Amino acid sequence: MREVFQAELKQVGEELVEIAKLVDKALSEARQAFLDADLETAQEVIAGDARIDFMQNELDERSIDILALQAPVASDLRMIVGALRMSSSLERMGDLARHLAQDARRRYPEPVLPPQLVDTFTQMFDLDLEIIEGVIQVLETRDMGVADSIYAKKAKVNELHQSVFTALTNEDWDSPVSTAVDVTLSARYLERIGDHGVSVTRKVAYLVTGEWTPSASVEHPTGHGHVGSDA
Amino acid sequence: MREVFQAELKQVGEELVEIAKLVDKALSEARQAFLDADLETAQEVIAGDARIDFMQNELDERSIDILALQAPVASDLRMIVGALRMSSSLERMGDLARHLAQDARRRYPEPVLPPQLVDTFTQMFDLDLEIIEGVIQVLETRDMGVADSIYAKKAKVNELHQSVFTALTNEDWDSPVSTAVDVTLSARYLERIGDHGVSVTRKVAYLVTGEWTPSASVEHPTGHGHVGSDA
Repeated sequence: MREVFQAELKQVGEELVEIAKLVDKALSEARQAFLDADLETAQEVIAGDARIDFMQNELDERSIDILALQAPVASDLRMIVGALRMSSSLERMGDLARHLAQDARRRYPEPVLPPQLVDTFTQMFDLDLEIIEGVIQVLETRDMGVADSIYAKKAKVNELHQSVFTALTNEDWDSPVSTAVDVTLSARYLERIGDHGVSVTRKVAYLVTGEWTPSASVEHPTGHGHVGSDA
Repeated sequence: MREVFQAELKQVGEELVEIAKLVDKALSEARQAFLDADLETAQEVIAGDARIDFMQNELDERSIDILALQAPVASDLRMIVGALRMSSSLERMGDLARHLAQDARRRYPEPVLPPQLVDTFTQMFDLDLEIIEGVIQVLETRDMGVADSIYAKKAKVNELHQSVFTALTNEDWDSPVSTAVDVTLSARYLERIGDHGVSVTRKVAYLVTGEWTPSASVEHPTGHGHVGSDA
């Protein structure tokens, strides 16, 4: 029985990694769709999100079955409850990647961004991709060595997010309000993706070390009211 | 032992109601802070959010203890797992109310909204308040008679959210881009609050009836890419 249980726990961990890899792929494709006004890739991201949702649901059902049949305690129980929460964060990251692809599709054949913001958004996408790749590594290895780098990347995402608001409210902003609306929401989606990545990392760290990393460490110290760790 | 367990389950349910009532209060105060540029009330909402976070944490720890000590199965197990998820949605609604209060504080003494959007936002706040009050009723009574009304109110929130984008991109929009940014995000917060309320309602309905209400029933059928049920 104990061996079966350990195999089940292992499978939950593997499925979390699998979902995280799908999110990585979705975000990578959303980056291309969004930055290159690539409609076909946008459609793929939008259609592909259902698979992430399905896998989350499967993982959750499996986790509940394990709770019912194995009645785990202590660290095993926390691992299963942690998996339920992490799958929720990962699923949400997939939704946000889908939103970015939907922005690209709605604006097609125009790009979403005015030229002066392409570099900022490219950096945000790249940092979020590095964060999710760090999350995959953390989930696979339980080696928390990469955690500080994930938190540092999220701090950089916050700075870039803040700089988008500065650009939007700058006197030389000359794009239509509809562009400002899309830029505002897209920047927020990218900030939220990074935040969920941090949230998953903190949950794994808690499972591994038993110590809770205060969220304050990754929050932007000042700035716009809309930035923050509030997954 | 069984009696103790039932008392524990009951307490979890009561704590969910208590958190939902705090969210109702926070949103009601955020409404006042936001619509009346009331700094003092904004500060109260912002400071009060820590209590919601604390109560969510307490509820989650208690739920994990119940899982460990009682090893519930079947509907009792689903109720506890459901409580973990519902507390997460309620906590997030509190965060979003805090964001709205932070908007009011950042803009003070100016109001966040241009005059032509006050009525739309007032309606969105009122619908969200009715949704959370419906959620409290559902949590207290398990009577799902109010569920359809909650879903209908969310559909109305979606319509109003959509109309905000129409107003923003209308030719006669004459406010600065910074106002458009705040309006865009605030409208999204109000949409998200309603969506989390629907999410909690659906989870209770699932626990009560065993039937899952597809989220499609509350999504806006067309409209802006940013609207949707994706908690």
